[in-house]
Amino acid sequence: MTDVDDLVPDSTVRNIEQAIARSAFAELTAFISPLPTGQIVAILERLDSNERAVAYRMLPKGRALEVFEVLDPSLQSDLVLALQDEQTAELFADLDPDDRVELLDELPANLARRLLQGLPADERDMTAEILGYPQGSIGRRMSPEFVRVDPEWTTATALTKLSDHLDDAETVYTLPVTADDRTLIGVVSLRELLKAAPGTTVGQVMQPAQWVHATDDAETAARRCADLKMLALPIVDHETRIVGILTVDDALSILEDADSEDQARISGVEPLRRPYLTAPVLGLMRSRVVWLLVLAVGATLTVQVLEVFEETLAEVVTLALFIPLLIGTGGNTGNQAATTVTRALALGDVRPQDLGKVLFREFRVGLSLGVVLGGLAFTIVSLIYGVDIGTVIGLTFLALCTMAATVGGVMPLIARAIRADPAVFANPFISTFVDASGLLVYFFIAKAVLGI
Amino acid sequence: MTDVDDLVPDSTVRNIEQAIARSAFAELTAFISPLPTGQIVAILERLDSNERAVAYRMLPKGRALEVFEVLDPSLQSDLVLALQDEQTAELFADLDPDDRVELLDELPANLARRLLQGLPADERDMTAEILGYPQGSIGRRMSPEFVRVDPEWTTATALTKLSDHLDDAETVYTLPVTADDRTLIGVVSLRELLKAAPGTTVGQVMQPAQWVHATDDAETAARRCADLKMLALPIVDHETRIVGILTVDDALSILEDADSEDQARISGVEPLRRPYLTAPVLGLMRSRVVWLLVLAVGATLTVQVLEVFEETLAEVVTLALFIPLLIGTGGNTGNQAATTVTRALALGDVRPQDLGKVLFREFRVGLSLGVVLGGLAFTIVSLIYGVDIGTVIGLTFLALCTMAATVGGVMPLIARAIRADPAVFANPFISTFVDASGLLVYFFIAKAVLGI
Repeated sequence: MTDVDDLVPDSTVRNIEQAIARSAFAELTAFISPLPTGQIVAILERLDSNERAVAYRMLPKGRALEVFEVLDPSLQSDLVLALQDEQTAELFADLDPDDRVELLDELPANLARRLLQGLPADERDMTAEILGYPQGSIGRRMSPEFVRVDPEWTTATALTKLSDHLDDAETVYTLPVTADDRTLIGVVSLRELLKAAPGTTVGQVMQPAQWVHATDDAETAARRCADLKMLALPIVDHETRIVGILTVDDALSILEDADSEDQARISGVEPLRRPYLTAPVLGLMRSRVVWLLVLAVGATLTVQVLEVFEETLAEVVTLALFIPLLIGTGGNTGNQAATTVTRALALGDVRPQDLGKVLFREFRVGLSLGVVLGGLAFTIVSLIYGVDIGTVIGLTFLALCTMAATVGGVMPLIARAIRADPAVFANPFISTFVDASGLLVYFFIAKAVLGI
Repeated sequence: MTDVDDLVPDSTVRNIEQAIARSAFAELTAFISPLPTGQIVAILERLDSNERAVAYRMLPKGRALEVFEVLDPSLQSDLVLALQDEQTAELFADLDPDDRVELLDELPANLARRLLQGLPADERDMTAEILGYPQGSIGRRMSPEFVRVDPEWTTATALTKLSDHLDDAETVYTLPVTADDRTLIGVVSLRELLKAAPGTTVGQVMQPAQWVHATDDAETAARRCADLKMLALPIVDHETRIVGILTVDDALSILEDADSEDQARISGVEPLRRPYLTAPVLGLMRSRVVWLLVLAVGATLTVQVLEVFEETLAEVVTLALFIPLLIGTGGNTGNQAATTVTRALALGDVRPQDLGKVLFREFRVGLSLGVVLGGLAFTIVSLIYGVDIGTVIGLTFLALCTMAATVGGVMPLIARAIRADPAVFANPFISTFVDASGLLVYFFIAKAVLGI
């Protein structure tokens, strides 16, 4: 669509593949090295895993780390497995603690253990601290390398302290202000420190702190950082002592992963966790087959419901014609409601306590959809198949839309309340429910209206 | 799930609602003012629009702007309509130009025009410049307020220049380095400026610039900013002259909107563009009814296909029992593939040129899913309904899964190639195609196997 899409022309990737095939390493280095990081990453993502390892080894040392940090953790893991032990150990020690933990989660356990043992003591301690937090918590994704300042200091003192940590701190633009026992009191931005009149203390220019606990859910914390438009969010323990910070770029990658996950699960796919073209076909198949089976097993309920009404069907075969249309519309209505509420939950616009409000809203939305669609269906079907069949179809649309929207809207909240993933739980439940109960409603209405 | 969810207890919101009902304004001010911005925003989002306007007016002036900036543009627009002209004009002048343009897009045209005319000349010029870029381009969302530095300057000079703009620049942490004619040469971070030895020039410490054009798609630009983990991305015109910057927090909100949009459209809902509980029921209904109708019209094709086979159905009513199961599984398989590829496209992992690769991958994935599901279905259905029906169902599963995955995977790429939204285009096309062609395949296989 734009120049950005042509960031890496296919011809470039082909040239590199050929250079690798010819083992023309000098040519390869000369070609790759001058490119900006973003382009190198884009090229690496398009190569297969052997080519990727070869191309990566051609990068000069400083660039290699820069490129590695931006790569997807799944590709980082592939690379680590392909590199020699010595290179791996060095690379691993150079990573930020939070990136290191993300990579560790991807690596085989024995390699992870070996790499951890090879770390310098202070880096190992920082990594161990992060690993101590539960999976999925923000403690796992925060950075323990921050600069904290004292509210009594002058802004000049704070700037001096800061200048000692320009190399190792994750961010120098938002600084937590803490008491001696590390209790968080506020935050101060570098901009405010630079703006302050000489002699001003940090306490005079700091802002009230907003924070999350290290054991809080990572997605919730990242959403908070995003909602508040903060460059960095302090992370505290249960005594409100600072233990780390979440920077906005890490928040962004947490949110992107969470959105990918929600989007996948709404359509019944397990999240891939690696770029599409680098995932093996078997992996793609595995990410889908379980959900397809679960949904198919749920759908066997429809076979059973239809069996009960087999005689009715044999009597009025015309009824069979509308089955896909009715079930499809019910499913679509349910999915619409479920997706809307799942997204609202993820964005924090709706909370489990809002169950009543959501139920009432979705009931009304479903009813009005049912009136529109049912009215249309009644008119059109009556003209073609007669008023009797038209009435059956119209009434079924009305009942089905109301039911599907209400159930679809409420399920994600129930899922959240019982601590299941709304996107996973809502999907199979709604399809199964709408399909089976929709058919029941259809045949009951048909029997009543047609008198069979 | 966490403390974060309890950010604003329901009791707090109720207290505020009651204070508003009793017109106890002093109480209200005393209650709201000391809260941090994030909590005030969360409270405002839970009030109805009249209450929201009342509560907002109680905020002290400085806080009011802070809160306003974080609010969703749809709620900003509601507020502007509820406030008095004078307050509105002042608020409007205090906004950043990019936030102002976002709000303008939400407001009625005559009010927007009046507000623009009321702006000070320089602010109006900056706003007009942004409004000059096409809808959906990054030029519309960038900030024109940045500090540019010269490569010949010493880092000390650059820091001095910076200190003059601490109040008005959107960010002071990433600075574009430009030639005299504003051509972008590089970027330099405040961290690098602070780290540099005295006497170093900006040119010596700057990094090569990565940039996007102002007319590029906003989502692509935001994704680029995120992928590169940059705090700010320079935006240039077609002569590579700097015209603005995109900061990471704006990139984040663009990506969140884009993800909400994709997620909605995949499930056939028009994006709401405002928090769920603040959207009127009629708005919710409207966001869904068009897609439901489109999908239902598509599904009438199934009625026609079934009509063609009405005699076959009358002969073997058992065939009707499996219609929902087969169609459902085909639809699920197609949706899985479409969602996966749509997401990969959005993330930039797949490009339209990869059509061949995706086709071949999805064909294999679909075939293997078909083998697994078809095999299972054959075994189970054979045991219950006999080998003939078992064979029909098994073969249909095989054909359906292969077809659905292939079509589902390829549609988003075709959509992108013809410049349609992959999420919108793929959905109705896949359901209609899979439902109708699935039934055709089913009845052809049934006729062949059963010899009817």
